[in-house]
Amino acid sequence: MAEQKQDTASALKDIISHAKEYGFVFPSSEIYDGLQAVYDYGQNGVELKNNLKTLWWKAMTMLNDNVVGIDASIFMHPLTWKASGHVDSFNDPMIDNKDSKKRYRADQLLEGRAEEYEKAGTPEKGKALLEAMAKAMTDDDMSGLRQLILDEEIKCPISGTGNWTEVRQFNLMFSTQVGAVSEDASLIYLRPETAQGIFVNFLNVQKSGRMKVPFGIAQIGKAFRNEIVARNFIFRMREFEQMEMQFFCRPGTEMQWYNAWKETRLKFHKAIGLPAEKLRYHDHEKLAHYANAAVDIEYEFPFGFKEMEGIHSRTDFDLKSHQGLSKKKQQYFDADLDENGKPYGNYIPYVVETSVGADRLFLAVLCNAYTNEVVGEGEAAKERTYLKFHPSVAPIKAAVLPLVKKDGLAEKAQDIYHSLKRSFNVTYDDGGAIGKRYTRQDLAGTPFCIAVDYQTMEDNTVTIRHRDSMEQERVAIADLREKIGFAVSMERVFEQL
Amino acid sequence: MAEQKQDTASALKDIISHAKEYGFVFPSSEIYDGLQAVYDYGQNGVELKNNLKTLWWKAMTMLNDNVVGIDASIFMHPLTWKASGHVDSFNDPMIDNKDSKKRYRADQLLEGRAEEYEKAGTPEKGKALLEAMAKAMTDDDMSGLRQLILDEEIKCPISGTGNWTEVRQFNLMFSTQVGAVSEDASLIYLRPETAQGIFVNFLNVQKSGRMKVPFGIAQIGKAFRNEIVARNFIFRMREFEQMEMQFFCRPGTEMQWYNAWKETRLKFHKAIGLPAEKLRYHDHEKLAHYANAAVDIEYEFPFGFKEMEGIHSRTDFDLKSHQGLSKKKQQYFDADLDENGKPYGNYIPYVVETSVGADRLFLAVLCNAYTNEVVGEGEAAKERTYLKFHPSVAPIKAAVLPLVKKDGLAEKAQDIYHSLKRSFNVTYDDGGAIGKRYTRQDLAGTPFCIAVDYQTMEDNTVTIRHRDSMEQERVAIADLREKIGFAVSMERVFEQL
Repeated sequence: MAEQKQDTASALKDIISHAKEYGFVFPSSEIYDGLQAVYDYGQNGVELKNNLKTLWWKAMTMLNDNVVGIDASIFMHPLTWKASGHVDSFNDPMIDNKDSKKRYRADQLLEGRAEEYEKAGTPEKGKALLEAMAKAMTDDDMSGLRQLILDEEIKCPISGTGNWTEVRQFNLMFSTQVGAVSEDASLIYLRPETAQGIFVNFLNVQKSGRMKVPFGIAQIGKAFRNEIVARNFIFRMREFEQMEMQFFCRPGTEMQWYNAWKETRLKFHKAIGLPAEKLRYHDHEKLAHYANAAVDIEYEFPFGFKEMEGIHSRTDFDLKSHQGLSKKKQQYFDADLDENGKPYGNYIPYVVETSVGADRLFLAVLCNAYTNEVVGEGEAAKERTYLKFHPSVAPIKAAVLPLVKKDGLAEKAQDIYHSLKRSFNVTYDDGGAIGKRYTRQDLAGTPFCIAVDYQTMEDNTVTIRHRDSMEQERVAIADLREKIGFAVSMERVFEQL
Repeated sequence: MAEQKQDTASALKDIISHAKEYGFVFPSSEIYDGLQAVYDYGQNGVELKNNLKTLWWKAMTMLNDNVVGIDASIFMHPLTWKASGHVDSFNDPMIDNKDSKKRYRADQLLEGRAEEYEKAGTPEKGKALLEAMAKAMTDDDMSGLRQLILDEEIKCPISGTGNWTEVRQFNLMFSTQVGAVSEDASLIYLRPETAQGIFVNFLNVQKSGRMKVPFGIAQIGKAFRNEIVARNFIFRMREFEQMEMQFFCRPGTEMQWYNAWKETRLKFHKAIGLPAEKLRYHDHEKLAHYANAAVDIEYEFPFGFKEMEGIHSRTDFDLKSHQGLSKKKQQYFDADLDENGKPYGNYIPYVVETSVGADRLFLAVLCNAYTNEVVGEGEAAKERTYLKFHPSVAPIKAAVLPLVKKDGLAEKAQDIYHSLKRSFNVTYDDGGAIGKRYTRQDLAGTPFCIAVDYQTMEDNTVTIRHRDSMEQERVAIADLREKIGFAVSMERVFEQL
């Protein structure tokens, strides 16, 4: 029937331009020529993003018996970031080319060279280089890192020279001064992750909520990283939004929970319409200092399989660090009995984290929805672009369209529009030919178009036109709310979970 | 029946402590002794706040035909704040006492003195002082402001001396460096208001959404102000959340829209359960440089009537400033015909803004809900504390409580819990005497308790216990979902709007 256009190279470019044209994502402060690696969500984008956030939130807090939410502030006491390790080691190694004045991440230059070895059929050379790099990074050996770049004779792509500065560590946290400019002013950071807001509130939630381990705390919120090289549209931004859940469990049970959450989270992405073949697990080969197991759920973006969500078994690293620095016990008393009939007693819980980038999930859903097909055959063949969102995440659920404005059709359509719009997000459009209006809704990803025609005036039926199949069916006005209401509801997603 | 305890002086203190104990609001980073004027929302707080945000969002975007949303980033191009006037004049006048080293807002010291004149029966002196202060502030005359403090012989409450520094202007915007520390790094601000994110996107939304003036753009998001003196719990925080809507209209029609929105917004606050007698309008006597009309909706907090929401007729100030600085036309072409039958043509729209503090609305709702009564009479009299939230905003909608754990009652209760929890936020509790469990739900503001008893096992009915009246009624399990579902739904609020 329909043939998918083969054009993956320009796919991201098309999506970025579509996102702007149809009110999904705008460059930030565009009238001032934008702000690098920062974006705004437009009128359709915000609805799509809110739908994804609400689905995640409800899936976490309502479909699990033992997960509650919090909303911690972006500003936190600076010692938080000392305990978490961000002050000392949340760094990227930077190097500047003296001729072009351009700045690069040293590790990315070396990774690029390793890829070239791979392509040239000498992967063993690439592997050796990556190992040497990993060692230098672990040892915090910046001059060793620089030496690798010199040895490999890597050149700046702009100037073409190998005239490099030293490699320096660059902390990715944004900082600001809080308080008036005097003795009480102090340096604080914009949080680089939302997780610590959960850890410092672990006992507040556990006690005030009388929570029993195992239990989880979920949070959605902004985080900030001063990325040296931000790229791939909203995939890597300096301001971004995380949806994180920290699950507190008894030490020794963490692998069981790690495996359970790994499955639960993959199921979520499938339930909102991401196809199985575009999703995969990617186990971390090298674990972060705080983890004893870690896996990414990757989505196949136009620029390749990349991390969308991370599931990490973080052990008791964070709570223990906070206990050490704050001198406040971060323990839980477990009254359950062990195999010897004695209570498990006091311990610092282990933590399994699920952390998904809201903007990355948005991008995955948008990329997956973006469809450019050739419909029809021979001379009748024509291109058709539409966004095939799962109805539960689509920004606009239905559009009400009178065939013509006259003869009372517009008024009838307005009545239907008003009767539906308190239940779900509905739009009204009476401008231009009906075919053009269908196309407009296709481009915004609206799953259902409700057309009001002359027959409507006689028998109170309308046609529903389905976005993906373009098929139409005749439906009584009285049945619209229930018919469309269920199709676009979040319950429909929850049934898959 | 019940007698309200008279104790308004300590009311805020009680509410703060209740908010912490029952998982509504925690001091930020409390294990590190907190961060001044920053708070975190706990497991019940986040649900309450999300309910308020969702109600506002839907009331704005779904109950009006011509309001859409956006979600702009916190980081914006710094010229934005030049155009808005924040770089040059978003200042507070500060003065330090040299002996105590304490810092004060000069205007607040003078306002305090004016209040004393009022109380002393010499209001004309207070009025004259406030006028002199206003003039000095308008003229940016900081030494004049200091002279008023000296003339009034105002002393520092800590040191008791009048040994003051100069008065200096202090800009309330937080700033940070974006980009690596080199020639491309630049100073940017954390937005002090969300409104500008809407203005810079005016044409993006208008064009991509084919919006016709009049129309509105709504936004919920964080803003930041480096308040010198932050106080009153979450009323004035350094990090806070705004819910703003900018309504773009034809010049000359702004007062009609201003009056309409003024009414609409007051109605909203009443619909979510804030009593009419605790709400009032307060017209601004002195208008900001950008406004031609402005009114606050004030709520009577324990510390008096204070601004919760502002409705401002902002003229074309913002769009015009952005046009001037960006050199990008911020015009709209209005094809509607004027009284002479000609199109209105190109103009910069006028703007009516509604801006409510999400945290202030939360605080108002919490203060209003907090109830401390004496129930019963004589020796049977006892105190009872509960949160009488409107069911549509309550964090937990219902609790399922088996009378005892044995004889299958717990399993039955679990079944009911699981059948309800995908529809709304339900909790389960089987720990302790049923009376204690009712009290626990009262303290969290849960409107309905569902008790499973021995009769349930026979006839599949349960009791619903109503929070405010403490009355119980027998209901079939099969009817629970519909009965409670409607009572707690947002539609119930929308019916009032």
